[in-house]
Amino acid sequence: MTEMLEMPPAHPFDDDKLKEECGVFGAVGVADAASFIALGLHALQHRGQEAGGIVTYDTEAGFQSARRFGYVRDNFTSQKVMETLPGPIGIGHVRYSTAGSKGNTAIRDVQPFFGEFAMGGAAIAHNGNITNAVALRRELIERGSIFQSSSDSECIIHLMARSLQRNIPERMKDALRRVEGAFSVVAMTRTKLIGVRDPRGVRPLVLGKVGDKGYVLSSETCALDIIGAEFVREIEPGEMVVISDGKVQSSKPFEPKPSRFCIFEHVYFSRPDSILEGRSVYETRRQIGVELAIEAPVEADLVCPVPDSGTPAAIGYAFQSGIPYGMGIIRNQYMGRTFIEPSEQIRNMGVRLKLNVNRALIRDKRIILVDDSVVRGTTSQKIKDMLLDAGAAEVHFRIASPPTMWPCFYGVDTPDRDKLLAAYMSVEQMRVHLGVDSLQFISLDGLYRAAGVAEGRDANAPRYCDACFSGEYPVVPSDMIDKGFKLKAAE
Amino acid sequence: MTEMLEMPPAHPFDDDKLKEECGVFGAVGVADAASFIALGLHALQHRGQEAGGIVTYDTEAGFQSARRFGYVRDNFTSQKVMETLPGPIGIGHVRYSTAGSKGNTAIRDVQPFFGEFAMGGAAIAHNGNITNAVALRRELIERGSIFQSSSDSECIIHLMARSLQRNIPERMKDALRRVEGAFSVVAMTRTKLIGVRDPRGVRPLVLGKVGDKGYVLSSETCALDIIGAEFVREIEPGEMVVISDGKVQSSKPFEPKPSRFCIFEHVYFSRPDSILEGRSVYETRRQIGVELAIEAPVEADLVCPVPDSGTPAAIGYAFQSGIPYGMGIIRNQYMGRTFIEPSEQIRNMGVRLKLNVNRALIRDKRIILVDDSVVRGTTSQKIKDMLLDAGAAEVHFRIASPPTMWPCFYGVDTPDRDKLLAAYMSVEQMRVHLGVDSLQFISLDGLYRAAGVAEGRDANAPRYCDACFSGEYPVVPSDMIDKGFKLKAAE
Amino acid sequence: MTEMLEMPPAHPFDDDKLKEECGVFGAVGVADAASFIALGLHALQHRGQEAGGIVTYDTEAGFQSARRFGYVRDNFTSQKVMETLPGPIGIGHVRYSTAGSKGNTAIRDVQPFFGEFAMGGAAIAHNGNITNAVALRRELIERGSIFQSSSDSECIIHLMARSLQRNIPERMKDALRRVEGAFSVVAMTRTKLIGVRDPRGVRPLVLGKVGDKGYVLSSETCALDIIGAEFVREIEPGEMVVISDGKVQSSKPFEPKPSRFCIFEHVYFSRPDSILEGRSVYETRRQIGVELAIEAPVEADLVCPVPDSGTPAAIGYAFQSGIPYGMGIIRNQYMGRTFIEPSEQIRNMGVRLKLNVNRALIRDKRIILVDDSVVRGTTSQKIKDMLLDAGAAEVHFRIASPPTMWPCFYGVDTPDRDKLLAAYMSVEQMRVHLGVDSLQFISLDGLYRAAGVAEGRDANAPRYCDACFSGEYPVVPSDMIDKGFKLKAAE
Amino acid sequence: MTEMLEMPPAHPFDDDKLKEECGVFGAVGVADAASFIALGLHALQHRGQEAGGIVTYDTEAGFQSARRFGYVRDNFTSQKVMETLPGPIGIGHVRYSTAGSKGNTAIRDVQPFFGEFAMGGAAIAHNGNITNAVALRRELIERGSIFQSSSDSECIIHLMARSLQRNIPERMKDALRRVEGAFSVVAMTRTKLIGVRDPRGVRPLVLGKVGDKGYVLSSETCALDIIGAEFVREIEPGEMVVISDGKVQSSKPFEPKPSRFCIFEHVYFSRPDSILEGRSVYETRRQIGVELAIEAPVEADLVCPVPDSGTPAAIGYAFQSGIPYGMGIIRNQYMGRTFIEPSEQIRNMGVRLKLNVNRALIRDKRIILVDDSVVRGTTSQKIKDMLLDAGAAEVHFRIASPPTMWPCFYGVDTPDRDKLLAAYMSVEQMRVHLGVDSLQFISLDGLYRAAGVAEGRDANAPRYCDACFSGEYPVVPSDMIDKGFKLKAAE
Repeated sequence: MTEMLEMPPAHPFDDDKLKEECGVFGAVGVADAASFIALGLHALQHRGQEAGGIVTYDTEAGFQSARRFGYVRDNFTSQKVMETLPGPIGIGHVRYSTAGSKGNTAIRDVQPFFGEFAMGGAAIAHNGNITNAVALRRELIERGSIFQSSSDSECIIHLMARSLQRNIPERMKDALRRVEGAFSVVAMTRTKLIGVRDPRGVRPLVLGKVGDKGYVLSSETCALDIIGAEFVREIEPGEMVVISDGKVQSSKPFEPKPSRFCIFEHVYFSRPDSILEGRSVYETRRQIGVELAIEAPVEADLVCPVPDSGTPAAIGYAFQSGIPYGMGIIRNQYMGRTFIEPSEQIRNMGVRLKLNVNRALIRDKRIILVDDSVVRGTTSQKIKDMLLDAGAAEVHFRIASPPTMWPCFYGVDTPDRDKLLAAYMSVEQMRVHLGVDSLQFISLDGLYRAAGVAEGRDANAPRYCDACFSGEYPVVPSDMIDKGFKLKAAE
Repeated sequence: MTEMLEMPPAHPFDDDKLKEECGVFGAVGVADAASFIALGLHALQHRGQEAGGIVTYDTEAGFQSARRFGYVRDNFTSQKVMETLPGPIGIGHVRYSTAGSKGNTAIRDVQPFFGEFAMGGAAIAHNGNITNAVALRRELIERGSIFQSSSDSECIIHLMARSLQRNIPERMKDALRRVEGAFSVVAMTRTKLIGVRDPRGVRPLVLGKVGDKGYVLSSETCALDIIGAEFVREIEPGEMVVISDGKVQSSKPFEPKPSRFCIFEHVYFSRPDSILEGRSVYETRRQIGVELAIEAPVEADLVCPVPDSGTPAAIGYAFQSGIPYGMGIIRNQYMGRTFIEPSEQIRNMGVRLKLNVNRALIRDKRIILVDDSVVRGTTSQKIKDMLLDAGAAEVHFRIASPPTMWPCFYGVDTPDRDKLLAAYMSVEQMRVHLGVDSLQFISLDGLYRAAGVAEGRDANAPRYCDACFSGEYPVVPSDMIDKGFKLKAAE
Repeated sequence: MTEMLEMPPAHPFDDDKLKEECGVFGAVGVADAASFIALGLHALQHRGQEAGGIVTYDTEAGFQSARRFGYVRDNFTSQKVMETLPGPIGIGHVRYSTAGSKGNTAIRDVQPFFGEFAMGGAAIAHNGNITNAVALRRELIERGSIFQSSSDSECIIHLMARSLQRNIPERMKDALRRVEGAFSVVAMTRTKLIGVRDPRGVRPLVLGKVGDKGYVLSSETCALDIIGAEFVREIEPGEMVVISDGKVQSSKPFEPKPSRFCIFEHVYFSRPDSILEGRSVYETRRQIGVELAIEAPVEADLVCPVPDSGTPAAIGYAFQSGIPYGMGIIRNQYMGRTFIEPSEQIRNMGVRLKLNVNRALIRDKRIILVDDSVVRGTTSQKIKDMLLDAGAAEVHFRIASPPTMWPCFYGVDTPDRDKLLAAYMSVEQMRVHLGVDSLQFISLDGLYRAAGVAEGRDANAPRYCDACFSGEYPVVPSDMIDKGFKLKAAE
Repeated sequence: MTEMLEMPPAHPFDDDKLKEECGVFGAVGVADAASFIALGLHALQHRGQEAGGIVTYDTEAGFQSARRFGYVRDNFTSQKVMETLPGPIGIGHVRYSTAGSKGNTAIRDVQPFFGEFAMGGAAIAHNGNITNAVALRRELIERGSIFQSSSDSECIIHLMARSLQRNIPERMKDALRRVEGAFSVVAMTRTKLIGVRDPRGVRPLVLGKVGDKGYVLSSETCALDIIGAEFVREIEPGEMVVISDGKVQSSKPFEPKPSRFCIFEHVYFSRPDSILEGRSVYETRRQIGVELAIEAPVEADLVCPVPDSGTPAAIGYAFQSGIPYGMGIIRNQYMGRTFIEPSEQIRNMGVRLKLNVNRALIRDKRIILVDDSVVRGTTSQKIKDMLLDAGAAEVHFRIASPPTMWPCFYGVDTPDRDKLLAAYMSVEQMRVHLGVDSLQFISLDGLYRAAGVAEGRDANAPRYCDACFSGEYPVVPSDMIDKGFKLKAAE
């Protein structure tokens, strides 16, 4: 059942991007957890702009929750809302869209989810995607569970409700052992903050310390910076931490697997000022530009980024190549995408609302245009059009990731395979289709090198999940296979 | 867990009234069920002003739901909302407040409730109260159910989810056989509209016909009038009807009990233009006035109602006594109760926002003031003050119901027993407390006579539930007894 | 120029009524004038539901204003709004619609209007209508005034701005001497509250006292009751009062004219609990019913009002005729008029949203139906239909005013003459058109008698303005004549 | 009089910046002027974020207006609002805050302003500031004009109303000849679009062509790009253009003065993709960086901009110096500044909501930080703190404008003189105060060179208005002098 509510305002990311689906944040042992969580979620807003929610617990008020469509800054800043969220412990979530209900989201799909068990309540927030959620849901419904959302993540709370364990962390282990896929979860009871990463550690999760006894869990380190928290360490793949009374207890409840962190977190999803696996995201991206300049040099007058995601790689490319760096495309700070089109049709109006060509700089120049990825290719084409209209002499596209050929089933919103330009075109076909003078993607090895794996990709045991480029899925996407998806091997 | 949302605007009923907690309405076999339901709920708005909800089913859109705080006219009139509710079948609900969460209501407590079962979805809307809901909830949680609301009514859907029956009507029978208390329920599957009344038939439910093949279920007949539906019959106590493809199938799934319809529906809850048990509510109320004039005559110049609920009884009293009828108190049509009080304190400001004395009419007259009931007595006192301030010579209170001495546990919002004036004062003490020249309540026998039971109340087998007056509860309120409530016999 | 804003919510009066266009209220010498004004305007809400405004003055904050579409209770109750309106002096206004911009109202048309003059600011609020506003406006624009609204009332403030007088009351006299038509004005400077009535006193205005040194001005006495103010006296026709420092100074700045108070204030506009010219409005209306029973008797079983405006006259008719009084038509307390009509068309849906027939009471009875007036006749017809559908044996219409044949140009919203049923049909033609068994209006003499003029109407010097019935306009409507309106004499 | 309305949401510019106060846009001869204007104003949003308004004229609908607080994208994108603005001609305005009512803005202060004259209506929108507005207003009020706003710009419409000229362009000339200060005005009648620049041309205004017969006027060329309009030319200082029926008529109604375009438009106000006086704003800013690197070199490891306004100059500095360019500070794309501060105080929380240091890049490096200007210095200090906290070895501030020592009276929001850091500190004092290793501003001559004046500033006839740096005001700010402001010469 769906319950339609007002859709959130337009968000500034382009339709032609892969989209991270979630960010999670939790706090415990601080005077007012909700205000820390609101700030943390604000810093994680790039991981999900559609909706956000916060749950807190206070001995007097009990569990309290507020879930809203739209930006954190628009919902979790008013005294009126924040006063309803008292207490020293809480968790929060921002989301783009769940596996369940794309484009038709209900407020009931907005996390955190809450369940009341015989031993008390618990709330959970999940970043990732459960690849056997359809099967689990069917089984749970047959046994009498009532689902309130269309989210895959709700399975976890129902599995916990049916566990025979006597405390919530143990119930959570029970539940997560039934779950396949990618998950970084923060959860809470009345007194405990819990963090878990799936055995392969596909999505990030870090631990920070604030004040004397306060701890926070966050998808990325940039959210530690905003609240002045000290970075402690990453939660390890397959690890569960239970934080209570200023103590962090660690366990490893799952069968061990090789780590497969998502390489696209380095390429695009995470914020450039975050540090993943001990590496600066900004530096990795800049290094991708350096590698690109080595792999794919070209004579030109100017290196321009597609703002803002292409900027660090463009800086690296310019640095390595010695070709001047410049802002050939200017971003409108006051995004918008819903204006009514004047009757005299305006070419590429959607893009113009966000970007404008710096005509004076571009005219008669040979431009190297650096972007992070090509998904459908629609935006790339429009930007190239705008450059040529403005008088660019040549346009050379350099892409800071390999061709995106496979959908992600681990918590990223990707188009169906047949919508991915690289899934049905060769690089040369894409070049012709986009109408540019040259087009080159970084190699998978080059990408691994930029990410610090000096020897490149080990085909037998790749360090990262790179399924979107390679088609090699570390976890079998069983629900999708039931729906007819064909693995690379099966093609 | 509670999730606070904006509270609805002030509603026009006084705090010093008993409040019906719900109205239900369902439609099937019509072109656009939601528009019929919206109109029906509008006509039932007096049964619940806090919130309302509608669920519909359409083969293309599936189950759709909209639930909102506030009046039906403010929420279910816009094209935008109604377009999200397509289909030929649906149910709706208006509520005042559930047993679960008084004054702290969350949108998740607003009905209808929905559950997805192995054989498809179902939605239910409930008028009444489940007296063993606390025990049922505890049991269900222990077995792994996740409750989403604090409403007693949610138990029904979880009991249905766990039933082993193969179709929804049978699961509903299973569930309702576990439930104690008062219930008039409308429910729906993708194709069936279902109506049930508890074995004693405490709350009303009627069947109407609209167009060729359309049927509606409604708490009261006034909602049939608004949509031009034909009254077919009342659903009988203990009866379940399943309506599909223009056919009404009836069954009696419960152990039979003596009927005990709520007599307060006649006195106050139902709309005067409704017909209950074949009797006009208006006529019963007018007849109460006639009985009161016989039981409790007094010399006076004018009979005045406390508008609007005292009006029919005042008309009856004036008719029987021959004393002229007049509007001594004028109601402000534009209710309001949240104005900021000026610093120069205004006596009885709360009442003044709603009522004003017709000073010219009242001055120097002996007034018989007719009201429907005395609950806390706070409003009665203020109205009397206003009459005396305006120069009334005498004030004689006549009350169209017996003293309200016991709380209701069957779907009516009553104060705790120790807040009920009549629970701790004799009639003479109340007269002194209210400061009126005389005070008389109709007798329980007189009330039964006015309601058509010529021989008065049969103490061994009363025709009505009159627990609020008599303390004789037809269904043992077991949850309340667990919480310490003492039955009359136990005092 | 118009600036469209959200239209206010549906108001409960029918389209088929004459509508008072304004109510005014002012306060001075109290601790927080705005809260008194909000309560006063709430009590005057029946005089205008479209919008309301309040201006106050405080030595620190200066002049402050808040103007809003919608009900007083929805706009002037929040702490947030009221805090912006500090100070011991202020005025307020509720309006239905001005002469200028029917159905297309802008917030800039909402009064009070404010002007800054060389000697300080002043604000005014106007009830009535200026019949030479078009000519005045043209003249003022030619001389360089910039109008901000389409309201006739704005002329007053521009005339004041151009006066050569040295203080505001004198400038106001200058301005109002140029103005023709009907006006009851409240105005304010930083320290003075001013009240004025036009020389004929067409619209009401009364003076009240609150606390030691506080005074209020109000359109009706019912607004004194709500704030516990003492009625002092009516402002006389042609009188100006200037209230400051607890003193009331009176003057008579206009050439004297015979008083011509609007008789429709007695019939319909004013609230029944108000006292006009020393007479209870309720009593006048009840007496109209008595007169009607004498003038137009008929054999019948029941006297029913069209609620609520027909109620006092129906009580009077029943009293005089000895025929029982009953509520044959029940009003829905939760008005609404914007529901989406179900596809199976519902007869008279608009009326059903507001009224329902008490079927059990009506069936097989001969009904005398008492209404206050017939304007277009559309509603009368629908109500009659509903009664007949419900099984009434006969329907006899009795109207508590004479046939409405002429538009009002003095501050009342009337349809064009050719939309007034009585302007182009005889009473018998109307009876046939409405489809009732009999139809009778009270005579003009009968109406005068009910209003306390024992000898009836003096054709040479009528005590009231009754132009809507008689076509005799006490002030020549010069703008309308310029637009082509023909006086009775000219026909 | 002030009328408080909801303040707009937080805007992303820092409090510690000079703020342009307005942007204007007009269109004529297109099918739906309002949609062009909405897009144009969106592109000019950086010139004013507080509020915006659009007026259009259509022969059927007449003049229509919509004025709203908040961003263009939030107000002028809905079908509902845009449908109220039909017609082939219109003007629009975005504003930060007028001279009249800082921080206490009323919707009535939002432009365009409208006046109805004897020969028809006209609307105007004004970018700039009238330096004799107080005196003009006093005079106009004394003669009977009623002001509706606290805006200096409203004087223009009142002066027009009192002109004896027979058509609107001539009345506008009359009015503007009385006005001192800076103004770029767009205005409209029913058929004519009018553009005017003051004799010194302080604020920009350009003419564009769209389609066959359409013309637009815009503050900047970036707004031509968004609608695909062709740049025609700049309106010249002292020029008025009247556009009608596809024809542009030019006149020069004012006494000629030397041109004094605002140099801060180049430094900060205008968008980098705009072209002013034939020069790319981006290129000028980049060139400022080049000049700075020559004037103020320093040994360092990295050149970082303060995003986004310092970016082009930082690129230029890095290019010229050969020191690598990097993003040491990352901007949060989802601005916000109203979060509730957690009880454990967070250092520099206001800045953290918008910016974060790229810790991995900064650590142990010597940083050259390039910003556009220093106003109060508060933000500079916080950014420096964040860099040092993150482990920077040295911080060298380079500022792309000379010290800001004087307030602007020509349409820019500047703090009072005593709040400008450079007004009371030497550069060395500022360096110590800010706590940086070195601090250097570009010289005034360097700035002129970067702006294309190869020979630097001519002290006798400077090409630009640079009063904020030099204290040499090309127009005497007479209102301010009346209020006690002292010119440089008078100090």
